[in-house]
Amino acid sequence: MATYKDSGVDIEAGEEAVRRIKGKVRATFTPGVLADIGHFGGLFAFDAAAHRAPVLVSSMDGVGTKLKVAQRVGVHDTIGADLVNHCVNDIAVSGARPLFFLDYFATASLRPDVFEAVVHGMAEACRANGCALIGGETAEMPDLYALGEYDLAGTIVGVVERDAMLSGEAVEAGDVLLALPSTGLHTNGYSLARKVLFDRFVAHDTPDALGGETVAEALLRVHRSYLDPIQALVAEGLAHAFAHVTGGGIEGNTRRVIPDGLGLDIRWDAWHRPALFSLIQEVGAVPEDDMRRTFNLGVGLVAVVPEAARARALTVLGALGEPAFEIGRVVEARSTGHEARD
Amino acid sequence: MATYKDSGVDIEAGEEAVRRIKGKVRATFTPGVLADIGHFGGLFAFDAAAHRAPVLVSSMDGVGTKLKVAQRVGVHDTIGADLVNHCVNDIAVSGARPLFFLDYFATASLRPDVFEAVVHGMAEACRANGCALIGGETAEMPDLYALGEYDLAGTIVGVVERDAMLSGEAVEAGDVLLALPSTGLHTNGYSLARKVLFDRFVAHDTPDALGGETVAEALLRVHRSYLDPIQALVAEGLAHAFAHVTGGGIEGNTRRVIPDGLGLDIRWDAWHRPALFSLIQEVGAVPEDDMRRTFNLGVGLVAVVPEAARARALTVLGALGEPAFEIGRVVEARSTGHEARD
Repeated sequence: MATYKDSGVDIEAGEEAVRRIKGKVRATFTPGVLADIGHFGGLFAFDAAAHRAPVLVSSMDGVGTKLKVAQRVGVHDTIGADLVNHCVNDIAVSGARPLFFLDYFATASLRPDVFEAVVHGMAEACRANGCALIGGETAEMPDLYALGEYDLAGTIVGVVERDAMLSGEAVEAGDVLLALPSTGLHTNGYSLARKVLFDRFVAHDTPDALGGETVAEALLRVHRSYLDPIQALVAEGLAHAFAHVTGGGIEGNTRRVIPDGLGLDIRWDAWHRPALFSLIQEVGAVPEDDMRRTFNLGVGLVAVVPEAARARALTVLGALGEPAFEIGRVVEARSTGHEARD
Repeated sequence: MATYKDSGVDIEAGEEAVRRIKGKVRATFTPGVLADIGHFGGLFAFDAAAHRAPVLVSSMDGVGTKLKVAQRVGVHDTIGADLVNHCVNDIAVSGARPLFFLDYFATASLRPDVFEAVVHGMAEACRANGCALIGGETAEMPDLYALGEYDLAGTIVGVVERDAMLSGEAVEAGDVLLALPSTGLHTNGYSLARKVLFDRFVAHDTPDALGGETVAEALLRVHRSYLDPIQALVAEGLAHAFAHVTGGGIEGNTRRVIPDGLGLDIRWDAWHRPALFSLIQEVGAVPEDDMRRTFNLGVGLVAVVPEAARARALTVLGALGEPAFEIGRVVEARSTGHEARD
């Protein structure tokens, strides 16, 4: 592909790596991708005629120390999907659809098999989200990374019509908070989770609480994409806002999308917390406040839905097989405004 | 700003860091930036009416082990400009103008002063290139990075009209290669340069060859942007293609933008090689072939210009204060096609 570059990478390993990923990456290409040779950048033909007032929505992210779990057990084919889906969700909550994705893979010494597995995960997730994997940078930096370790980051760019963009301005007191389940920790809280769990267990232990799953399997469950349910609600105008639950937890992230003067009444006992979270809390004696600030606790996405749209929203989500549940409401703020972190 | 996120970052350090960079980042905002609160992604209003058939050109890159030099001497306020300018050049060679930039800063433990200096460099370079610094991710991963070290990557997105895009298809035998000087090593060849120079010198040594500059100063000279000279040539239709000289050197990168069936005749003695390159070659007894493959050797950008446009191109560049010089020509290929690396 035109733009998969490598810097300072051993030439043979680099060629081998590019050969291995070429087909996987091409399989993600959507009609917008211009695969001309000779370019230093990725090329995406933007269909200007199909848009009235397009807003490009972009996000850059990493997967944090979930990487360390993947590297510990040598499972490299899902961390790429974690990265892509995390990024997809970050722009999908604005109502945007993804257009293209670029990745950064930095390591001590490129292992073509590991690189291939990582790109495989990214490419599969890109395909599933209709997003072209349009470019990437691979860097070998033995002085910065320890042998066998790598860091991974990605950037997504998507588009939404300006008048369809969900900015949270429409959110009102009385709106219902509908939760969509997470698949696990997603990509947040891994520093705490690893500390707690690996003090007590090894990666392949199967604590009773996990019902047969190993600690590593539970920790590596793939961060899912919420693009389809979000788009289904957006298509019928059923949501005022969406919050992707990442660092900061359910409350911290939902606060980001509600206007000043409003607050949240979250009923923390409204759902069954998945076993992994309870195990971490119990083993680590983690205070409840820390649990709420650090983990998604089983809720990966919050849809802020007007009361009048609740029934229809649940029907739409149910038709997609999404087991949504209500976890609280938007209320008038009791105190004078929390400040947004960023 | 709406999208400067931090993952797993100590809350106080994170707030301090965001406070420090807020003004610098806002100063890069161009009219397209929508700074609404509450978004998980960066928002850029794309002026669809101003384009006929826009192509989004994107690139993701790092700065490689130039980082290690910056970290060795504690100079953090230029590495961000290295990153931005590298990315700008990668898309500018297609004829694109930058729209927005996102960065990834990963470290063991966030030092607000270091982070501020890095973002300062990025923001200044973004401003100089008319590019909005629209988002970023800051990650603390003490298990992946050594104390005091960080990695830095960035993504740029720009735009060019499809019929104005320079793909190299127009390049013909007889075209002239005009070189624009580099400011130093730019961001390539640092593994070799560091090995050679730091075996012999310490960072603050001033070898005679460098005319008063320290080794660290010479190595940290900022990778410049070629956006203005490229755009000036593009505006008058004076170039068939441009090559940004990065890993692979002058020949490797210029080959990327010429069609199959054509070759390059580079006159390697046509210019005075800057002292830093000669010093590296001499001290490290580096073979000439390796020098040519690894370093830019004083040429940061190659403009492939039709013979008939050469005089005008030199005039246009001269008016911008750009000391361009001719380093060779495009010729019929003698052998059957070299294959593009990527």
